[in-house]
Amino acid sequence: MAKSRRQFLAASAGAAALTSCGKPGGAPAAAAPEASPAANMRPYGERSPLEKPLRAIRDLSASSGTGSSRTPLGDLFPGWITPSSLHFERHHAGVPALDPATHTLLVHGLVETPLVFTIDDIRRFPAVSRICFLECGGNNIGDQRGVPTPDVQQSHGLVSGAEWTGVPLRVLLQESGVKPEAKWVIAEGADNCRLARSIPMEKVMSDALLVYGQNGEALRPEQGYPLRLILPGFEGNMNVKWLRRLNVLDQPAMSSKETAYYTELRRDGKAEMFTFVMEARSVITRPSGGQKLKPGFHEIVGLAWSGRGKIEKVEVSLNGGQTWAVATLREPVLSQALTAFRLPWIWDGQETVIQCRCTDETGYLQPTREELVAVRGLNSGYHYNAIKPWKVHANGEVTHVSIPA
Amino acid sequence: MAKSRRQFLAASAGAAALTSCGKPGGAPAAAAPEASPAANMRPYGERSPLEKPLRAIRDLSASSGTGSSRTPLGDLFPGWITPSSLHFERHHAGVPALDPATHTLLVHGLVETPLVFTIDDIRRFPAVSRICFLECGGNNIGDQRGVPTPDVQQSHGLVSGAEWTGVPLRVLLQESGVKPEAKWVIAEGADNCRLARSIPMEKVMSDALLVYGQNGEALRPEQGYPLRLILPGFEGNMNVKWLRRLNVLDQPAMSSKETAYYTELRRDGKAEMFTFVMEARSVITRPSGGQKLKPGFHEIVGLAWSGRGKIEKVEVSLNGGQTWAVATLREPVLSQALTAFRLPWIWDGQETVIQCRCTDETGYLQPTREELVAVRGLNSGYHYNAIKPWKVHANGEVTHVSIPA
Repeated sequence: MAKSRRQFLAASAGAAALTSCGKPGGAPAAAAPEASPAANMRPYGERSPLEKPLRAIRDLSASSGTGSSRTPLGDLFPGWITPSSLHFERHHAGVPALDPATHTLLVHGLVETPLVFTIDDIRRFPAVSRICFLECGGNNIGDQRGVPTPDVQQSHGLVSGAEWTGVPLRVLLQESGVKPEAKWVIAEGADNCRLARSIPMEKVMSDALLVYGQNGEALRPEQGYPLRLILPGFEGNMNVKWLRRLNVLDQPAMSSKETAYYTELRRDGKAEMFTFVMEARSVITRPSGGQKLKPGFHEIVGLAWSGRGKIEKVEVSLNGGQTWAVATLREPVLSQALTAFRLPWIWDGQETVIQCRCTDETGYLQPTREELVAVRGLNSGYHYNAIKPWKVHANGEVTHVSIPA
Repeated sequence: MAKSRRQFLAASAGAAALTSCGKPGGAPAAAAPEASPAANMRPYGERSPLEKPLRAIRDLSASSGTGSSRTPLGDLFPGWITPSSLHFERHHAGVPALDPATHTLLVHGLVETPLVFTIDDIRRFPAVSRICFLECGGNNIGDQRGVPTPDVQQSHGLVSGAEWTGVPLRVLLQESGVKPEAKWVIAEGADNCRLARSIPMEKVMSDALLVYGQNGEALRPEQGYPLRLILPGFEGNMNVKWLRRLNVLDQPAMSSKETAYYTELRRDGKAEMFTFVMEARSVITRPSGGQKLKPGFHEIVGLAWSGRGKIEKVEVSLNGGQTWAVATLREPVLSQALTAFRLPWIWDGQETVIQCRCTDETGYLQPTREELVAVRGLNSGYHYNAIKPWKVHANGEVTHVSIPA
């Protein structure tokens, strides 16, 4: 994507040209910023107090600890990693305060030898690290319901990325000796609701991870400290936090979080269960709702991800869907990881609608809302991955595009 | 590296086998940990108060703000990313408190149009993200001098990894119009010593980055907030923090930090200047100095990196250098990035010396201390990248191997 110098000069329209050019070795005095006083070094650093992006908290029930916090995607620099302090959360019964010195994991059920592992035990196994996205099954549920989401934090903030470190889950199961009739593993958390999800044995024995590390250090408390599951590409709720128990069964547990919740109501009134994989989606994070533009050069930036593998292509339309241009992907593209994309744009100051769509390595193309609704109807709720358009008004304001009910 | 179940059982020797196996759907009551009370959600998260790894601070002069802080490599999970709060620091005149709303970058000297850029100007340019290591030229200088370093934080803690986001430096130079006679760019920081380094134009026009983002959010104050250079593979000191000025010259500035400091004294008494690239090195982070082992299964883990490109191979010796085994590298291997390696080991409880050595994609093999000293002598100081052995004593203690002076 070669850019002419003219285009970039548009970007730096604010950059002041100096009429008095400094001679080599000396800067023009008027342009030299002053140094500020020194600060003390800190054993554990913090961000600048001038930085403001925060998670948006939705407290559904303070007494039971049910709620969510959303990553401020529109304020961050899109890449593989979300700062641990800003990784999204979705809690169903608060954040338990667990001590890695005493917390244990029980593996039992259809195994030869039920075992209890301490965190130290688990850390002694050969470890693996991988970067992947984690997304709540309910991300962008507002758009599914036709509720306006004013910005990308509200619409898509229930997705984040991290480098996770831990042990392949199959290793612990192999330690216990899985019996031939085992088909499911019920993962249970130590939160107050004992959140439980049934994981198919195929996932357990392939890429499922039992993790204790996040971005190089221990898991954050809100991410399941000291132990959680990571099931690359599967809906967030299944990546059980504060993991305390793996119960090996020949059938799913039919827990409340896989029957009463996290199912998709079909048009015929029946519900789809066990819809594990988060299908490909993408969203423009800049410009996005709540931001304001000046005419001239902008870079369209955003994120794409797919639970089925690598993102192969992201296309962007800057004219309400009439034409689409292929965006540049951040290389190397990692499987089941946030993939940043970028496309240069010179905005002429006219009202328009911008949007993106992605294709993953399986050939799956992110659907329009119309296509998705035609298949799933208006009540499916979870797994809503339709294209998200943003309207750029002539005054530069960017807003949600209202959805016909 | 397939492992037998027998080996893993050694790793989980501490895991308690349950004699009373729970029936499917119900855990043995005695083994079920209790859930803890819920905590409130936080807009900006913090790590668990039970987590203790801290940077080790060496305050060379509190009044002038000169000193360093070292990453606790032995306590972290080796991967591409060091937590921003634990990224190493090396300051020469404190941490200036700069405001991105007022801080500017001046580009002047041998350019057609001197320009002053605000942070907003710079953020409007097309951006790139990349993961790379950053390492102080003086990392492991203690070993060079024969001073014992008790642990890997003290020996190698002046290296870290991050995902950086910003603008190719060449773009800003092209905006100003570089004159044909330009050969060097003097980068100057806004710290109280106005730390300045001369960057060869070839690096400026290839992969040098002007960055404002670190691991998805703004740079941390200690990392140059709001603007710094990242010169992948070049010694840390050249990656100027709190960048305020780029002066384009036809010769290097011969600043104090490239003449009085950050040069290597040769055996003939003359000093090597402008030794930019950090050559390949590797170190075992676990087991490492200060840790204590029990006999049985352990995974040898560590980091390798090269300023010249990708790590091609890491070899580990567990018997004082008699034989070497090839470790598994974390995939994909990224150029000029921290590369984690792993090798399983069953320690028999006998005293031994463990060490690693790496080869990068140019074919360069990390030298022994003897090989390095034969070429550079004992006074070179910076860029000491020799193999680092750790001694495992029969009682399980791991210590520094003393070096003949």
